[in-house]
Amino acid sequence: MSPTIPPKTIQWVGGLNGHVLMIDQTRLPTELVMIECRDAETMWEAIKHLRIRGAPAIGIAAAMGAVLGIRDYGGSDRRGFLKRLDEICDHLGTSRPTGVNLFWALDRMRKHARSTETADIGALKIALLDEARRIRDEDAAMCRAIGKHGEALIRPDCGVLTHCNAGGLATAEYGTALAPLYTAHDRGRRFRVYVGETRPLLQGSRLTAWELQQAGIEVQVLCDSMVGALMKQGRVDLAITGADRIAASGDVANKVGTYSLAVLAQVHEVPFYVAAPSSTFDPLIPDGSGIPIEERDPDEIRCGFGRLTAPPDVPCYCPAFDVTPARLIRGIITERGLIQPVDSERITETLRD
Amino acid sequence: MSPTIPPKTIQWVGGLNGHVLMIDQTRLPTELVMIECRDAETMWEAIKHLRIRGAPAIGIAAAMGAVLGIRDYGGSDRRGFLKRLDEICDHLGTSRPTGVNLFWALDRMRKHARSTETADIGALKIALLDEARRIRDEDAAMCRAIGKHGEALIRPDCGVLTHCNAGGLATAEYGTALAPLYTAHDRGRRFRVYVGETRPLLQGSRLTAWELQQAGIEVQVLCDSMVGALMKQGRVDLAITGADRIAASGDVANKVGTYSLAVLAQVHEVPFYVAAPSSTFDPLIPDGSGIPIEERDPDEIRCGFGRLTAPPDVPCYCPAFDVTPARLIRGIITERGLIQPVDSERITETLRD
Repeated sequence: MSPTIPPKTIQWVGGLNGHVLMIDQTRLPTELVMIECRDAETMWEAIKHLRIRGAPAIGIAAAMGAVLGIRDYGGSDRRGFLKRLDEICDHLGTSRPTGVNLFWALDRMRKHARSTETADIGALKIALLDEARRIRDEDAAMCRAIGKHGEALIRPDCGVLTHCNAGGLATAEYGTALAPLYTAHDRGRRFRVYVGETRPLLQGSRLTAWELQQAGIEVQVLCDSMVGALMKQGRVDLAITGADRIAASGDVANKVGTYSLAVLAQVHEVPFYVAAPSSTFDPLIPDGSGIPIEERDPDEIRCGFGRLTAPPDVPCYCPAFDVTPARLIRGIITERGLIQPVDSERITETLRD
Repeated sequence: MSPTIPPKTIQWVGGLNGHVLMIDQTRLPTELVMIECRDAETMWEAIKHLRIRGAPAIGIAAAMGAVLGIRDYGGSDRRGFLKRLDEICDHLGTSRPTGVNLFWALDRMRKHARSTETADIGALKIALLDEARRIRDEDAAMCRAIGKHGEALIRPDCGVLTHCNAGGLATAEYGTALAPLYTAHDRGRRFRVYVGETRPLLQGSRLTAWELQQAGIEVQVLCDSMVGALMKQGRVDLAITGADRIAASGDVANKVGTYSLAVLAQVHEVPFYVAAPSSTFDPLIPDGSGIPIEERDPDEIRCGFGRLTAPPDVPCYCPAFDVTPARLIRGIITERGLIQPVDSERITETLRD
């Protein structure tokens, strides 16, 4: 069996005069349209309008966007170069101001420029391109490591349930929640994936179903309300999702619906795993009660499909995330290994290594 | 406080030369459009295209449709009249061939004609109009009785969760699951209703939210995936849904998502009630395992909003219903009283009364 080809979510093509090539995720699943990005403004627009999404992928996009912005800098003075880089990074940061990874990547680019001790502007530009590529490559390696640590959970012929998109489209390559699946697939194992459509924005049906299908993995879509019925029929052997933020206790904030899924998994004795890079842990938050939950625009529920599906003025309950307590999580798969059981001691140990 | 005005789902206006006036439910929630139905063919089309839906409402529509079809019968011979009535009923039965209530109502009309011992065709027509109106009035009375038996469950300032539409739009007046809410509202109690949007066909957000809002009851819409998060926040004091079919054991088949909701309710210690007329019980089915589950067209998931939201050829898991075991149900509210606890003895007792 040939290895899985992950979606080419984002890549830098050519040298310093090259461009960024990325999938326009707003056109999926109906069309696979690639965007050629040759300037920072196009990248700003792409991030802003969710053409690229998923925290790690946004970080990579921002870093590459900074290179696109600075490569045409015509001056020869280092101070002017750094000032211009800051302006470009500040501007890129306004594209999605709540994106933690976005700022992390832009900061890394600024710091890299400052720590590169040369007066040669051309060399500085090359150093920044190298750094952006490194951010991408490190992310790809991190996904592969999660895959390696989680793949043994995917038994032959098993049924795996996932939610939202924590796949290749959200990262450089294999994704987080999907990395164990891609890795098991690479090793020739056959299994079936069920994916909840993930209302309101349907990342499950639009994105996860698409990328698994592209990789040749058997996938079925269901409405989020059907998870209980599916588990009751004994079709789910394992559930696995990504994470947006993990408290020191192991409580996990992730796309709304994850908590319901975890409760249903426990009642049906289905082991529930979370896959996330160690950077997702926030040791400053003791437990889930300290994780702020963003409320989204009610129109995402009322007219998320370009059509009004509820009375126009009806109030909505629309949290972006929910919090799953550590006791419902069998294990957390990180690039450093599998944390199981999930408790603060094991988490501290893994993060310290 | 003035009494609740239920939606005017379906009514016969005037005498034998009158017409049926009903809400076009496919236009909700954006527009309130009334259909004037003056012939059986218009009624056939309305049932076929879900302009009227909900088992009891379809039964009423079919009975009134039979009157519309037969009232212009020009002959004077009883046998010819009955033959024509059969043809009309057969044709109306093809509008939604899986509708149990549809056939029940049409059979009742046929039988009523046969048991009306007169040779006067005009009197026969009047007798059929009376019978159709009686089917409507009996349904309205049944809903009111469910409301009366369930209203005490709706405590002041409580939060009530429901799913799908088992409201006035599905029946002649107060609905089944919503009847206790309308009745409590009539008695001046204030409370808040949460309604899951009910993918794939969104009866919760399109219909239930609309009719509760019309009645002046506070309502919030949520995605089905948000039920767990809502309960965890302590916002739900009571959950209540309708039922499509109830086995002798008390196991309930209802719109998919009901089972997940019932499991989540139990885990969060939220009492879960079902409201349904006693005709919903099927004593010939011992328990839930004997209830056949219809699989729906996968396109309801893949392109339910007139837009493709999943890969066009991706397989889907799309059951219409799921089965909630009796042990998860605190009580079943019928027009004959509240069955609590839910077990076969109490069910038999209630049905026998």
